[in-house]
Amino acid sequence: MTDRAQGAPIRVALLGCGTVGGEIVRLLTDQADDLAARVGAPVELVGVAVRRPHKHPELPAGLVTADAAGLVTRDDVDIVVEVVGGIEPVRTLLLEALKAGKSVVTANKALLAEDGAVLAEAADASGADLYYEAAVAGAIPLLRPLRESLVGDRITRVAGIVNGTTNFILSSMASSGAGYTDALEEATRLGYAEADPSADVDGYDAASKAAILASLAFHTRVTAADVHCEGIRTVSAADIAAAASLDCTIKLLAICERVPSEDGAADAVSARVYPAMIPSAHPLASVDGAFNAVFVEAEAAGQLMFYGQGAGGAPTASAVLGDLVAVGRNLVVGGRGPRESTYASLPVLPMGAVSTRYHVSLEVADRAGVLAAVAREFAQHDVSIAAVRQYGGGRNGGSAGGSAAVRLVVVTHAAPDSALASTVEALEGLDAVRGVESVLRVEDLGRSVSALGVTG
Amino acid sequence: MTDRAQGAPIRVALLGCGTVGGEIVRLLTDQADDLAARVGAPVELVGVAVRRPHKHPELPAGLVTADAAGLVTRDDVDIVVEVVGGIEPVRTLLLEALKAGKSVVTANKALLAEDGAVLAEAADASGADLYYEAAVAGAIPLLRPLRESLVGDRITRVAGIVNGTTNFILSSMASSGAGYTDALEEATRLGYAEADPSADVDGYDAASKAAILASLAFHTRVTAADVHCEGIRTVSAADIAAAASLDCTIKLLAICERVPSEDGAADAVSARVYPAMIPSAHPLASVDGAFNAVFVEAEAAGQLMFYGQGAGGAPTASAVLGDLVAVGRNLVVGGRGPRESTYASLPVLPMGAVSTRYHVSLEVADRAGVLAAVAREFAQHDVSIAAVRQYGGGRNGGSAGGSAAVRLVVVTHAAPDSALASTVEALEGLDAVRGVESVLRVEDLGRSVSALGVTG
Repeated sequence: MTDRAQGAPIRVALLGCGTVGGEIVRLLTDQADDLAARVGAPVELVGVAVRRPHKHPELPAGLVTADAAGLVTRDDVDIVVEVVGGIEPVRTLLLEALKAGKSVVTANKALLAEDGAVLAEAADASGADLYYEAAVAGAIPLLRPLRESLVGDRITRVAGIVNGTTNFILSSMASSGAGYTDALEEATRLGYAEADPSADVDGYDAASKAAILASLAFHTRVTAADVHCEGIRTVSAADIAAAASLDCTIKLLAICERVPSEDGAADAVSARVYPAMIPSAHPLASVDGAFNAVFVEAEAAGQLMFYGQGAGGAPTASAVLGDLVAVGRNLVVGGRGPRESTYASLPVLPMGAVSTRYHVSLEVADRAGVLAAVAREFAQHDVSIAAVRQYGGGRNGGSAGGSAAVRLVVVTHAAPDSALASTVEALEGLDAVRGVESVLRVEDLGRSVSALGVTG
Repeated sequence: MTDRAQGAPIRVALLGCGTVGGEIVRLLTDQADDLAARVGAPVELVGVAVRRPHKHPELPAGLVTADAAGLVTRDDVDIVVEVVGGIEPVRTLLLEALKAGKSVVTANKALLAEDGAVLAEAADASGADLYYEAAVAGAIPLLRPLRESLVGDRITRVAGIVNGTTNFILSSMASSGAGYTDALEEATRLGYAEADPSADVDGYDAASKAAILASLAFHTRVTAADVHCEGIRTVSAADIAAAASLDCTIKLLAICERVPSEDGAADAVSARVYPAMIPSAHPLASVDGAFNAVFVEAEAAGQLMFYGQGAGGAPTASAVLGDLVAVGRNLVVGGRGPRESTYASLPVLPMGAVSTRYHVSLEVADRAGVLAAVAREFAQHDVSIAAVRQYGGGRNGGSAGGSAAVRLVVVTHAAPDSALASTVEALEGLDAVRGVESVLRVEDLGRSVSALGVTG
């Protein structure tokens, strides 16, 4: 605890003052009266730690400091708000703050996904609050609903679009027919992608969020390392077109599932991120641009959808301030907020054991028996074929000879990832197969479309 | 406070055991271990008050009682869960419970919309919790996000579909072309409408929810009496068809808006419920059947959407149990949850002062000058016309004579409700006007469609 006197102002230290931090400072000023009325005490910014103080003439000179370590443990600080991002030095700073009894509000998905347990323990030990609504899906209230509103229910799945950059890129590829590289350039030019886009396009950002969502939804601990992660660099214009021809759309999905065990053992958890084909009629398919949308399925509640802006200065600041007011209210009544519970130590299913459907595109020789040979490999690896389609060529595996190539597209029923992987390996060994052009997962996302009654 | 010992079970009294109550009892049993782990103490059902105990053989005899008044103040009760509904005797029972220091979890929208302030004061006085997530939009986490997640932001509008019965009826009218009466019969047969449907079809249920939403969103007190309320009985197949011809869909909307004052005075609040035409491309238009969906607009967060099942035993029970766990956690740490704040005493705008657009359908004589006469009345009442369309007849107000009738449809720009009302009155006075067939509001719901980036 801190030395705060009852009724005294809630004193806030801010770490980082970029786009989000700047919005936080603005809102703390513009809405000071409302915030004070909602908290039950004035909310006062007592310090802002930035790397280069001289670069922030917009901030009152008295507030700015380069000494973050000194700021987070200052006696006159009640809450530390962190919008710097990254692991170090932030991890050390926040642990120091929590040990000193300061409550922490952070938007740091990477740190939470890697060391959430350590931070939670530190908060428990000192009786401080640790809130991080802004870490996932920006302004969309998602973590609090999972942690509190749905805490009396059994959540079975959380699936959605949680990275705006990749959704913007995939949306523009779909609408313009552009390739990945061009779409990424456009996203960078418009400020939707960072100079180094890898955290977004390689799926790491979404994976961190998936770890946080799975932990809260299933009351267990899932870290970023537990999340199977594939990005969108390999998604081609041809893939997008192939999806469209099947009335599907390709989205980068974060999927967290509770997988019932067959042998009566404890359920397992699956957390994964990858681009997948989803039916174009599914509500998630029409989530364009930088927006986020997340589906939650629970046994009693049924299906829920949350939709909104997943990033940006103002939306993220809104989530941070919501947590700030919550922590402030707790301080005013001398208490603390409810913890997330992590009593259920559920095993995380390896990707190889996760079953999904697949869309496999092959370049094969246009000659007799090729289709039969390909089908045989799928059968031998217990991957059941739902549909096969041949593009180009005229003999669809009928007559003799010829070195022309045709494209063969196979859509499978649900099969374990490991079985599909060995099938693909075997296919590449067939001399009639010139190459496996692409392997895309197909996610039906359950009965969502009809159940949601969404017409399109 | 109660005489509960630390670590002791959280003892729950249930009022009412119909569809929702039955689900609550089932979930309390089936998920006992999970709930105990999440609360930090076992959750124990110690009594169920019902009108006719002998009608509930499914409940342990020891638990059932007809003496609700006795149950709610029993020393061994920590939390009272109410799923009876209606004003009395529930109001008295819950006030007694709160006065006795019992925390209350209720799904009673009518009581909260009428006497929320009294209940909140009683809870404050005794330091008890008062939670009611289930009162609005069933399982959709909506009240907690408004009260907590968005508490650092300035909410400008909450608009949505919050009554499943009327949405089911309007959806089936739109898809089948059926009239209101047939659609209502179908809804009743399928269990989506009650024997006496007036609370739903006359909009009272939605109005209660609008009052609760407006109170939380704008940190002020709005009661059901403050909500302008129109139901769907007067919506005809012709209205639905007229809407469709304009690429619109008719939905019963609950709309809560923060209306900036022009003269620098305090903002006002508008809370209203009525059937309105909305663009078919708007996400709310594709919410079919008994589902609910609510849009929230906030200055920093931007636009958010919440979607899910708004009613039914299991979804409602999910929301009730979420609150039950929240209250339980508070009891375990010896504290209480954050209150909603109602510091802002914002005036409620009378409907006459609320501006919306209108779709007016008139039956007029098919003769010279009619259109001019009609247009003059709109102009004289300062209601600007956006478009006029004539159906039937051949002379569109051109040539002379004739007693044939044609239909004239006028779509206006935004105008105050009072101006439109006096315009309609004046139109009915014109002898060329055989009758005003229908007056429907048109809600564009802001920049939602494009801002949401929803393609379909």
